[in-house]
Amino acid sequence: MSDRYDIAVIGSGPAGLEAAINAKIRNKNIIIFGNKDFSAKLVKAPKINNYLGFYNVTGKELKKHFEEHIKKMEIEITEERIDAIYAMGDYFALMVNQKTYEAKSIILATGMQYGKPIKGEEEFLGKGVGYCATCDAPLYKGKIVTIIGYNKEAEEEANYVSELASTLYYIPMYKGEYKLNENITVINDNPVEIVGDDRVNKLVMKNQTIETDGVFVLKDSISPSQLVPGLEMENEHIKVDRKMQTNIKNCYAAGDCTGKPYQYIKAAGEGQVAVLNAVENLS
Amino acid sequence: MSDRYDIAVIGSGPAGLEAAINAKIRNKNIIIFGNKDFSAKLVKAPKINNYLGFYNVTGKELKKHFEEHIKKMEIEITEERIDAIYAMGDYFALMVNQKTYEAKSIILATGMQYGKPIKGEEEFLGKGVGYCATCDAPLYKGKIVTIIGYNKEAEEEANYVSELASTLYYIPMYKGEYKLNENITVINDNPVEIVGDDRVNKLVMKNQTIETDGVFVLKDSISPSQLVPGLEMENEHIKVDRKMQTNIKNCYAAGDCTGKPYQYIKAAGEGQVAVLNAVENLS
Ligand SMILES: Cc1cc2nc3c(=O)[nH]c(=O)nc-3n(C[C@H](O)[C@H](O)[C@H](O)COP(=O)(O)OP(=O)(O)OC[C@H]3O[C@@H](n4cnc5c(N)ncnc54)[C@H](O)[C@@H]3O)c2cc1C
Ligand SMILES: Cc1cc2nc3c(=O)[nH]c(=O)nc-3n(C[C@H](O)[C@H](O)[C@H](O)COP(=O)(O)OP(=O)(O)OC[C@H]3O[C@@H](n4cnc5c(N)ncnc54)[C@H](O)[C@@H]3O)c2cc1C
Repeated sequence: MSDRYDIAVIGSGPAGLEAAINAKIRNKNIIIFGNKDFSAKLVKAPKINNYLGFYNVTGKELKKHFEEHIKKMEIEITEERIDAIYAMGDYFALMVNQKTYEAKSIILATGMQYGKPIKGEEEFLGKGVGYCATCDAPLYKGKIVTIIGYNKEAEEEANYVSELASTLYYIPMYKGEYKLNENITVINDNPVEIVGDDRVNKLVMKNQTIETDGVFVLKDSISPSQLVPGLEMENEHIKVDRKMQTNIKNCYAAGDCTGKPYQYIKAAGEGQVAVLNAVENLS
Repeated sequence: MSDRYDIAVIGSGPAGLEAAINAKIRNKNIIIFGNKDFSAKLVKAPKINNYLGFYNVTGKELKKHFEEHIKKMEIEITEERIDAIYAMGDYFALMVNQKTYEAKSIILATGMQYGKPIKGEEEFLGKGVGYCATCDAPLYKGKIVTIIGYNKEAEEEANYVSELASTLYYIPMYKGEYKLNENITVINDNPVEIVGDDRVNKLVMKNQTIETDGVFVLKDSISPSQLVPGLEMENEHIKVDRKMQTNIKNCYAAGDCTGKPYQYIKAAGEGQVAVLNAVENLS
């Protein structure tokens, strides 16, 4: 069994970082998932004037201050993309490819950047459409699986599933070299519609149509309700109360994913509120 | 008539400062009330670790960063203590001693530091007990007025009221030299209970009891519902929704005054949310 953390923070933008430092101050056993750059929305900002204490800084400069802060507190980002989170009663199971992490409490700080779904994607979700190929792989033993990959990490998932599936189609939505098993068929085309009866049976692309038993859409980030089944949304945002508590016990959310305004210090403030309430609930 | 501001921010802690910088960025005509030190709770903090971007700083150091920020944005704190705020329909009237300011929208960022009320204080509020002596002075022409002063500013109010009242008792709750008119009687004693029938008629102190028609309690800060009549509270905090909107239109609140956790970046984040929603509502 893997270690069970007190708190897992998903996302390394200002919301996630602020949650992590507060949890650490409160002596909690934490893990924070994200990436070394923290957030594309941070490093790409040309000029920031509205984060109290820092006037006229670039996103890269602000990132450096954040980096120094978490380094001094001995917090390290675990560079992994969480694919799915299941509420197991008194803990959460966080799925990453073939690995599982466990935590008593979670803070969703995943930001806002999930694109439009493909036609049919929502209709067939759970009926052949999925967002975590490795999680669902056992269901597709000996079957035809199609993976629409938006980033290089999707390749790993494709390789894993190709060991079970009879046929694996990989449709890359990005340019580059693909590190894929030999038995994988790469199709360079644009998905248009996922088609089926009770379950998925076809994927229509711009220039061709293929038969398939399953379609996995592996985006940069998936909508929170796809990440955490059962999570209550309010339009495109996670529904939270003033304690940043979601509808699921011990599951909190903070930052852009909970609603506008989309801003750094709003996100950080919410990360703090979320984690301090999580800490209170743990004890 | 005084100028009418787009937004008045009451309080110069992190919540108020963050509100002010965002309003300024959005090109609003603003005024912020508070003091040069920003907040006693800021300058007195020995060591701060949980404000993302600043690790291991003293409150005084953090204050310097805030000061530099607002200076560069040409924001100045108006050093005045707002005594009462009245919702006038399409604007708010903010009372300061003999002056009135007007604003279309207000952000309450007054922090949390109102002590326990004196016995009888709440019972007789509006029936002889008040928090703004200068506002209510006309009602006490030729009457006996008692002022319980918690700070030097209360002396000014006492002097003003003493010109109308028949007798003015001043009960200082602090040490120091008092700059009071000659016709004021200073009593060095501790208030225990405000007593009356329909209205106040006596003040009981530890060592003596005096007859009085009115008692003004002039504290460092008064409870928000005393500051803004009609404001809805939830226990001792201002009731707000996720937009930091109170029950009064165009009246927002942020920071400690809206609830726990009492923390800088939570306060700042809320100040930002409050003011950006206020700005949206103005247009
Ligand atoms: C160009 C630009 C300029 C901006 N300028 C400003 C500005 O001047 N002032 C201001 O206040 N705001 C500005 N913003 C907005 C600001 O960037 C966002 O509001 C802020 O980054 C939100 O923080 P967050 O922590 O909620 O999410 P994000 O910063 O988006 O961080 C979320 C992180 O979580 C990661 N993540 C998501 N899902 C998973 C998963 N399943 N597993 C692991 N990790 C995951 C993401 O990869 C990302 O790194 C700007 C944005 C952009 C794009
Ligand atoms: C010793 C100490 C150490 C702390 N350490 C930390 C820490 O390490 N980390 C952390 O996150 N938090 C810390 N805090 C808590 C933090 O100080 C507060 O949460 C924070 O200051 C709240 O900000 P605010 O803007 O809501 O209110 P405040 O900072 O309280 O500011 C409110 C301001 O409004 C003014 N005001 C009130 N009424 C009026 C009026 N009617 N007219 C005009 N002005 C008015 C007040 O005088 C005050 O200056 C500490 C607090 C103390 C006392």
